[in-house]
Order: sequence, then structure tokens, then C-alpha cells
Amino acid sequence: MKKILHQAAAVALISEAYVRVRYAETDQMGIAYYANYLVWFEVGRNQYCRDCGFSYRDMERDTGLFFIVADASCRYKTPAKYEDELIIRTGIRELSRRTVRFGYEIERSDGEKIATGETLHVFINQQGRPSSLPEPYLTRLRGK
Amino acid sequence: MKKILHQAAAVALISEAYVRVRYAETDQMGIAYYANYLVWFEVGRNQYCRDCGFSYRDMERDTGLFFIVADASCRYKTPAKYEDELIIRTGIRELSRRTVRFGYEIERSDGEKIATGETLHVFINQQGRPSSLPEPYLTRLRGK
Amino acid sequence: MKKILHQAAAVALISEAYVRVRYAETDQMGIAYYANYLVWFEVGRNQYCRDCGFSYRDMERDTGLFFIVADASCRYKTPAKYEDELIIRTGIRELSRRTVRFGYEIERSDGEKIATGETLHVFINQQGRPSSLPEPYLTRLRGK
Amino acid sequence: MKKILHQAAAVALISEAYVRVRYAETDQMGIAYYANYLVWFEVGRNQYCRDCGFSYRDMERDTGLFFIVADASCRYKTPAKYEDELIIRTGIRELSRRTVRFGYEIERSDGEKIATGETLHVFINQQGRPSSLPEPYLTRLRGK
Repeated sequence: MKKILHQAAAVALISEAYVRVRYAETDQMGIAYYANYLVWFEVGRNQYCRDCGFSYRDMERDTGLFFIVADASCRYKTPAKYEDELIIRTGIRELSRRTVRFGYEIERSDGEKIATGETLHVFINQQGRPSSLPEPYLTRLRGK
Repeated sequence: MKKILHQAAAVALISEAYVRVRYAETDQMGIAYYANYLVWFEVGRNQYCRDCGFSYRDMERDTGLFFIVADASCRYKTPAKYEDELIIRTGIRELSRRTVRFGYEIERSDGEKIATGETLHVFINQQGRPSSLPEPYLTRLRGK
Repeated sequence: MKKILHQAAAVALISEAYVRVRYAETDQMGIAYYANYLVWFEVGRNQYCRDCGFSYRDMERDTGLFFIVADASCRYKTPAKYEDELIIRTGIRELSRRTVRFGYEIERSDGEKIATGETLHVFINQQGRPSSLPEPYLTRLRGK
Repeated sequence: MKKILHQAAAVALISEAYVRVRYAETDQMGIAYYANYLVWFEVGRNQYCRDCGFSYRDMERDTGLFFIVADASCRYKTPAKYEDELIIRTGIRELSRRTVRFGYEIERSDGEKIATGETLHVFINQQGRPSSLPEPYLTRLRGK
């Protein structure tokens, strides 16, 4: 049984990252194309790690592990448009030795709700096998 | 109450689209970046419309409506890699006058399961208001 | 004959924009995929307009014109990598009533030269016809 | 001095690849975003290798070399639009032991000229050093 080390209720840390919608990210509907929200979630995760005191890049190099995505979902509320300034709030909803579930809220700078979402990641090694994230990183991800 | 005109059980049509994973779609993990699966779903939807006898482009022009995405989710099974040939199977899980839910299965050409997913779309007009899809398109989407 | 209103020698304004390389932008070579540099050029152009006192979005809405790309080139020096912080320096090399040529230099935050490039744009209206950019915008683009 | 093994005049092989413009590739101007042409060039190169009897993926694995991009340029003629079917014609303009220059022509299925371009690649090893492409691959790239 997967032992959950950390759950949403206990999460204190919420990270904030900022993006401005690029022309490249719009489509002919005149709004941001729906797949780009998952890219912004990644920007949010990156900032979350940074706020926990490590860079995702260094973690990959140091541990030889990757956070492969097992599940992703997004609920779209108000379309993001070109040049909109977005705030991506990222937190951890669940953390075990082998998986982490991030939650996201995207808001426009004027407070309009843009989207919410989740991604579930499994820690894998370079051979693609599920692995345990070393304790120092688990501790940092807990945001303590 | 939303009247469901069409449900999964009743779906006969499953469309097949083909993509080959591009270098642009890979990331430094050596696999296809997770947001690209939503782009492939779009390729699948496009083919689905085509197999129903209309092009999504012409539908947009003809009706002035867009299929805006309200929800998207993807479950990742085996990572897709550069040059993999993928089959995207697309069907309709639910259809009402104002919304459509597509379901997707992505398989590698050797039969390996790559991913499954769903997207929920709301029909909106050029002012961004929910609208009813005209009957001829509803009929076609039902695949009859 | 195209009358050049403004040439490189006369350019004072050089704009600076910042991006951090996203995981989405890397490829399996472990570096940023080459097409993304053109996206960063766009981020540079956007900042250039902003530094000239207008947003590209508002210009599009206000004039009904687009800066369509006629030519683009990029010379790649040192590969940009995941999480690299990049500075995009953008200036105008040539400006006429109907076209603008932007020049770009991308540098890593430690001073390493990453790339240089150019894009040539033609001002077109909503019917796709070449048009003259209204004087107020020409004046602003001259950075005066 | 770089010895040119192969020049445009001598090129017999022109490869043809096909793409259909995706919604993801459009922008709010209602046309394909300019960076995507470089992605289509990649699709063209991939097909070129395939037509020469090898897959780029296998070449990477087999030789440990990458075709890193040193230069890229594109001239845009008629904008590509959503659902357009494009033919990418790819040939080699110049080939030496350490570099290859590809040339591209993109045409819409009705014969309309969409774009032309070039990319210059340097063969590098996993340490990022310029290297010679092994003879069997040079021979194949010559299309003989």
C-alpha cells in the first residue's frame, strides 16, 4: 500500500509563478491554446521546487531521477488571451516516496479565475523504473 | 437540465488518426512532452469530424461557432518516443446541443498502450456565449 | 521604392526581455529546440513595443493591422538549456511605412552568447493586404 | 578548409513529407505561427533520412552523434492556414564530413508556394564537440 507522507490538508506552501501569454500560445480562436496550460503548470512546478530550495534541473542531475507524468487534468474557466499576465499558484496535494501530486490554480492579474488543474508524477530512474525520491528532496518538497 | 442526446454506449464510430512523434515534441527526458498529447487529441478530433463528413474548419466558418475546451484529462501509460508511430482513436462519449465529450486512446503502432484521455467542449459563438450546435452538425457528429 | 525611415545606425533603443528556458522547450538532445528561439524573438518584440509605450495587442486592436513575418533567421551559438535565464535584446534595424526589421541578440545571464537573429515584418490589414502603419505607431517604434 | 563533399547542383534526391496544419499551430492572426515552419522543416529532414534508408533516431543511437542546428532561415510567402495540407520538399544543398545544409520548399496541396528555407547542421558528439559523420551515413545522405 502506498504510504501517503503528506496530504493537501497539511500543505502550507503555495508557490507563485508568473507568465505573460505569448503570441505563439494563442490559436485562431483568439485565445490561448488548451495544451499550453499544461506548460504553465510546469512553470508552476519549477517555481515550487525553487521555493523549496532546489532547482528541478539540479535534482535531475543529482539524483538521476525524473518526475514522469502519470496523470494530468485541467478545468478551463475563463480563456487566457494574448498578453494576459497570469499567476500560477502551485501546491502539493499528496506526497509519497514514489509519487507526488501537484495542484494548480491559474488566475489573471486582475483576479479573474482562469483554470485549475492537477498532475500526478511518478519518480523514475534513467532506466524508466519507479524509484524512491531521496529523503532530502522529500523533506524539501514538504516545504519545511 | 442538460439533455444528453447521445451516450458512449450508443457510439458506433471510432475514428483513427496517425501521427509520428516529432523531435520538437520530445523533451530532455528523451520522451514526448506531456502537453503534446493534448495536441494529438486535437488531431484525433479533427479526424473524427472528417470521418463524420465535415471539416472542423468549415464548421467554424459555416456556423460561427467554436468548440471551446472546458475540461481535459490524460492518463499516461507508456511514454511515446521520437519517431514512434501513434494511432489516435477518437470517439464521442456524450453529446448534447451545447456540449460534446470526446474520448481518446493512443496506441503505438506495435499495439503498446500509450495514453487515454477525455476532453469536454462547449459550443460558443464569436461573442463567447454558449450556443446550440445546428442540427445538421449534431446529426453528423452522431456518426449517422 | 521603399523609403527607409529609420536605419540601424540611428537606433538608440535596445529592449531587454527575460525568459527562463522551460522543460517544454527542451528536446531529447538535452537543449532548447531550435524553433523556440523564434518564440523568444517574439517575446523580445513584445517587450520592444512595450518599451516604446504601447502593447502589441492594443496596436492590433486599434489599427486592425498585423505584423506578418516575411523573413526570419537565427544563428545559434551556444545551446540554451533547461532553466537557463536568457536576456533577449531587441532593436529595430530598419523601419519603413510598410515594413519593420527587428534584430535580436540572446545572451545567457552569465554573459554567454546564445544566438542572434532577425525578422522582417510586413504590416497587413485584416484582408491580408500590405498597409501603412499609422504615424503615431511609427513614431513610437522609432523610440522617440 | 572545409571540404565540400557534395553540392546542390549534384543533388538528385528531393524528399517529400506531408503535414496538415494543426489548430495548435495557428495563432490569433488566423494563420500558422511562424516558428512552426521550422518544425515542419524537421519533419522534412526526418523524411529525407528515411528516404536515404535510415531513421534519424537510429543514426543518433548508432553513432552517438547529433545534427545540431547552427543556422536556420525561412522566407514566408503565403500564410499556411488551419487544415491546409502541406508538402515539404527537402534536399541537401551542401554536405561535408562535419556539416550538412538542408534546403526546403513548402507548398500547399493546390500548388501555392508557402515558404522556403535552409538549415545548417554541425555533427556533434555527446560531449558537444564537432565530429565527423561516419562514412556509411555520408554515403546514404548523398542519396546513392
